[in-house]
Amino acid sequence: MVTDHRKLPRRRGEALNAAIFQAALDELAEVGYAKLTMERVAERAGASKASLYRRWPSRMELAMDAVYHVMPDPSAPPDTGSLRGDLLALLRNNAELLAGPAGEAMRGLLSDALSDQTRTADLRRHSQGHSMKVMREIARRAIERGEMDAGAVTARRLEAGQALLRQHFLFNGVPIPDSVIVEIVDEVIVPLFIP
Amino acid sequence: MVTDHRKLPRRRGEALNAAIFQAALDELAEVGYAKLTMERVAERAGASKASLYRRWPSRMELAMDAVYHVMPDPSAPPDTGSLRGDLLALLRNNAELLAGPAGEAMRGLLSDALSDQTRTADLRRHSQGHSMKVMREIARRAIERGEMDAGAVTARRLEAGQALLRQHFLFNGVPIPDSVIVEIVDEVIVPLFIP
Repeated sequence: MVTDHRKLPRRRGEALNAAIFQAALDELAEVGYAKLTMERVAERAGASKASLYRRWPSRMELAMDAVYHVMPDPSAPPDTGSLRGDLLALLRNNAELLAGPAGEAMRGLLSDALSDQTRTADLRRHSQGHSMKVMREIARRAIERGEMDAGAVTARRLEAGQALLRQHFLFNGVPIPDSVIVEIVDEVIVPLFIP
Repeated sequence: MVTDHRKLPRRRGEALNAAIFQAALDELAEVGYAKLTMERVAERAGASKASLYRRWPSRMELAMDAVYHVMPDPSAPPDTGSLRGDLLALLRNNAELLAGPAGEAMRGLLSDALSDQTRTADLRRHSQGHSMKVMREIARRAIERGEMDAGAVTARRLEAGQALLRQHFLFNGVPIPDSVIVEIVDEVIVPLFIP
């Protein structure tokens, strides 16, 4: 099927990006990462293949950006008024995303990155930068509220919750039971920050 | 190249298994998981392809068994006399294995499992059963020595060290710096068990 892109409404910048991300996520939900192609996403978004390739060198970069597009803004994580509440909200949100097209994309991206070490660095830059930023902000607020001590914060501790959630996702699949999230928060992260 | 297996020394049971595992690990080190084939492993081990297929339905099961064959016996983890010492020894040992052919196999197995959910369960059964067993034994000894309280042990806490090590392996590759291992032990696992 050939789409005449001249007949499509002209969209630029953010609006076009958003349409492409949505199309990529819909494709991921429908056919999975293994069958995701730039062609199908372009078709679905009503955009030209060229406009996709101008923005992303391959489906890998596109899928990665699409995933982080639906992630909550890392500089404004859930603000529930307590460390425990913020952590539960954050991990529940992540677990929900992992159970949808973003999780399908994460599985595919990680599978690709594992078989090609040069891609590992890209994936790391995106994914860990994001989750560390969120965790730093949650910890900063808890310190500000006087709930925890600044000295309790270390990089490994900030990583621990996501590492456990990801391990569960990778080895057990989805959905991630809520009891697992509560255990991660109550048995691991909170005791590390508020001993 | 065709090997006349009738001219090879007859090996059975453990000896043949060990030769096949070694051949699989050598292949993994040389060509990587993506190019691992039952044929090449059989050739290298001086065994028939049929004898491999009698034991393992596919390269995936073979690679998994080969990896766990070189893992230390989970019922007899490092015994250094302290919780911290045991944990450091365990994670250093794991980090060293991940930097070799076993790590190459783990990357490949995980990549496969990620693109085919039915394989995830196999991988989980092998890998998590193993590491939980080791951690339970290390914790049991620490409790026996009076170093820690039995009430501090939970499944999530037993998983935390391996989850952090694996996350580092997956996103940052190898070698895993020793400083990362020391941080995992001193900032996360020990404080959870000995608050």
